[in-house]
Amino acid sequence: MSKEITARSQDYSQWYNDLVIKGGLADYSAVRGCMVIKPYGYALWERMQSVLDGKFKETGHQNAYFPLFIPKSFLSKEAAHVEGFAKECAVVTHYRLKNDPNGGGVIVDPEAKLEEELIVRPTSETIIWNTYKTWIQSYRDLPLLINQWANVVRWEMRTRLFLRTAEFLWQEGHTAHATEQEAVAEARLMLDVYADFVENYMALPVVKGTKSPSERFAGAVDTYCIEGLMQDGKALQAGTSHFLGQNFAKAFEVQFLSKENKLDYVWATSWGVSTRMIGALVMAHSDDDGLVMPPRIAPLQVVVVPIYKGDDQKKALDESILPLVKALKDAGISVKYDDSDNARPGWKFAEYELKGVPVRIALGARDLENGVAEVARRDTKVKVSLPLEGLPARIASLLEEIQQNLYNRALTFREEHITRVDDFDTFQKVLDEKGGFVSAHWDGTAETEEKIKELTKATIRCIPLDNPQEEGRCILTGKPSHERVLFARAY
Amino acid sequence: MSKEITARSQDYSQWYNDLVIKGGLADYSAVRGCMVIKPYGYALWERMQSVLDGKFKETGHQNAYFPLFIPKSFLSKEAAHVEGFAKECAVVTHYRLKNDPNGGGVIVDPEAKLEEELIVRPTSETIIWNTYKTWIQSYRDLPLLINQWANVVRWEMRTRLFLRTAEFLWQEGHTAHATEQEAVAEARLMLDVYADFVENYMALPVVKGTKSPSERFAGAVDTYCIEGLMQDGKALQAGTSHFLGQNFAKAFEVQFLSKENKLDYVWATSWGVSTRMIGALVMAHSDDDGLVMPPRIAPLQVVVVPIYKGDDQKKALDESILPLVKALKDAGISVKYDDSDNARPGWKFAEYELKGVPVRIALGARDLENGVAEVARRDTKVKVSLPLEGLPARIASLLEEIQQNLYNRALTFREEHITRVDDFDTFQKVLDEKGGFVSAHWDGTAETEEKIKELTKATIRCIPLDNPQEEGRCILTGKPSHERVLFARAY
Repeated sequence: MSKEITARSQDYSQWYNDLVIKGGLADYSAVRGCMVIKPYGYALWERMQSVLDGKFKETGHQNAYFPLFIPKSFLSKEAAHVEGFAKECAVVTHYRLKNDPNGGGVIVDPEAKLEEELIVRPTSETIIWNTYKTWIQSYRDLPLLINQWANVVRWEMRTRLFLRTAEFLWQEGHTAHATEQEAVAEARLMLDVYADFVENYMALPVVKGTKSPSERFAGAVDTYCIEGLMQDGKALQAGTSHFLGQNFAKAFEVQFLSKENKLDYVWATSWGVSTRMIGALVMAHSDDDGLVMPPRIAPLQVVVVPIYKGDDQKKALDESILPLVKALKDAGISVKYDDSDNARPGWKFAEYELKGVPVRIALGARDLENGVAEVARRDTKVKVSLPLEGLPARIASLLEEIQQNLYNRALTFREEHITRVDDFDTFQKVLDEKGGFVSAHWDGTAETEEKIKELTKATIRCIPLDNPQEEGRCILTGKPSHERVLFARAY
Repeated sequence: MSKEITARSQDYSQWYNDLVIKGGLADYSAVRGCMVIKPYGYALWERMQSVLDGKFKETGHQNAYFPLFIPKSFLSKEAAHVEGFAKECAVVTHYRLKNDPNGGGVIVDPEAKLEEELIVRPTSETIIWNTYKTWIQSYRDLPLLINQWANVVRWEMRTRLFLRTAEFLWQEGHTAHATEQEAVAEARLMLDVYADFVENYMALPVVKGTKSPSERFAGAVDTYCIEGLMQDGKALQAGTSHFLGQNFAKAFEVQFLSKENKLDYVWATSWGVSTRMIGALVMAHSDDDGLVMPPRIAPLQVVVVPIYKGDDQKKALDESILPLVKALKDAGISVKYDDSDNARPGWKFAEYELKGVPVRIALGARDLENGVAEVARRDTKVKVSLPLEGLPARIASLLEEIQQNLYNRALTFREEHITRVDDFDTFQKVLDEKGGFVSAHWDGTAETEEKIKELTKATIRCIPLDNPQEEGRCILTGKPSHERVLFARAY
């Protein structure tokens, strides 16, 4: 099984696709750019949803659901917004099919043309702010803290499973506030929620920062982001949080009466993470034998495989394994006892390795005699023989150890791949030979940013938060600069 | 607040809309036929999802996710299916907008026309069976037990919040089996899961049955359904489970190699329930003062309202209420302590009554002296003074009592509204004057069924499972019949 995976060193991109497809996370579909999320991949998404949803609710947000369709005219109400999304949207123009009178099968009924075309939501600011207009009258209605779990569609020309698909699943928070400070604080808070999730559950260290103006969300005043680093040295944006100022409130005429009885436009934020995070998870930790799941987010944390010949040995093993499985479950650990007899232990080992299950416990007749079990870690591949006595507690701490190890490994890799560079030749060379983030001075103009992108394919990933001020000169133009920014080639 | 609700007796339909909108469940949107599900309504949906999802997983199902879009040609592959869904679907024809060169704002880019139109899924049999083709080769791949939580779109001409909307949220199970018996058993099992949920969580008794051929799902061999009765005497289909035979397997060429090494088409089921259930819940239990939530499905089970003057009284109340709230939470009860000072107790009482919170606890300074609290049930409106000592346990059993009472009340109503009728005049009269289910003989033809519908607006809701055989004559044609079926006017 594991032999079918292309080696990272040979073809990183194919390695990724092999992991996603053969690891049972997703599959291509018959619809261009849309994927099928398979049960194991969806279980991972459910784990992500469950943790994030808990964090959203802890921070006072409520879920709601808004229409899939956005009237074309809504998109146009915020100038930058339509500019950013009009070029890649699915447009509904008709509401009925009919039999072709000329025998050409089923065709679109020309008489069922919509008066106004509907856009399948690429993001929901417009339809939501149009609704908020009726929900918000006074400061008493604020803050309004809403999140939506939904599917969205962006008609991307080049797609990749999880990383960039025409349809994807995500959550989008949309909040309304009485003051600018409060909205900025909300955007920052949600960035922290995302960073905490990605670092502590996905075991992926991230840099928090703001986007340069050219990379901002279409309609935002400021876009905050978290950027992670993949094993091939490319960066990946794992989540964004936008301070929208009063742009959407003005576009949709959402005003409120303040405590001081003054009419003012509402301040807004929006923030989202998507199934793209699954792509990040795969690329951050996996190896040539398959996926590697951080225990805190793994759909399955432990698998137990019995090794036996005949019913008597199986029965004897069951007597030890069933209580062990129960004890693990009682300790809140997700565990599967795979005693199916249609596959041999070796095949099962490879299968769970491919799926990245953090801990595998194998037990045979001799182990039983010795009162031990073979415990294998997916992250380091180390196998040890451990006493059955006290094993559940040992497994619980082992899972935490694995979680920590994956994070530390990714952090070390990231730290080794942030390079400070002061001239353009080195900049180019570091990108080509080492990859990773390059910390360099930039003159602050969109022209230079664009030029660097053309020359090197690297973009400004972010201007890190709490960035130290430092005098320097732009690596391309030599113009003065007051701080370094992080460049990288990116997904 | 409660005064704004139209009385049931005055205008049942307006009463329903008032409850949905003023109770905070949903709202109309700017998009024809699409609704906004508001936070309280969505919280209810999340409760439903959580219970059902648990039941699906217990019965061996896994969640997955398939594309929102269905190629037009897929819909046509199953003849009855396209007939059923082509007339009401949203069709995506283009993938880009552009600025009108003539200054007409943003228009559809005629150059971005799709080669094949995409249908926004009205249900996912076709796209899923097209995928199953690649997932199923051998009996070892069966059964395949998959569920999807998703949004679907059916371009209904007349819509009503929750009951019939262009877009709605639902789950759709799609399973594949090696034998006919196994598939039929699955369809029946899921019907039982639905009935158990609707009866034991939503407190709504249902009749389980099969649909007449005319009312079957487009593409099914048999459609099983659960039918509930609303307070106005109209029936509502709360869920359906379909035995699809080999129809979709044949349409999409899904064959498997059996244990006996023979190639055969796969047997299928599909089953679904939707946000329509929220409409059923509202209409089954609510009254003129607002919603009435069955405790087991209520987003909020208990609200505690303090009644005080000044900080000292408030502080004294907190000392008793905070531990009470904690004890309720520890007992697994969802509870809110509403000590906000921007509304008076009377306003709060009306608000929680409108929202249907099952139990309200009010506590004032005098109650505290007496060591009691005022406990009000939403279902019966009975208020009693109960000792604070032991209150959490008392509340827990009260919630169960309310759950049972709501179910019994609905059951009594339903039993009183099943009328056996043997002639057409009485049939018509019962429908007009009493409503409810009418149990009558029917000659088994689609023509008679259609004629009865034309004359009375009543449809065959179902042929109950385990229906006793009984000789009789069709109420319309007088032709012989061997069993009674249930007619009703329906949502």
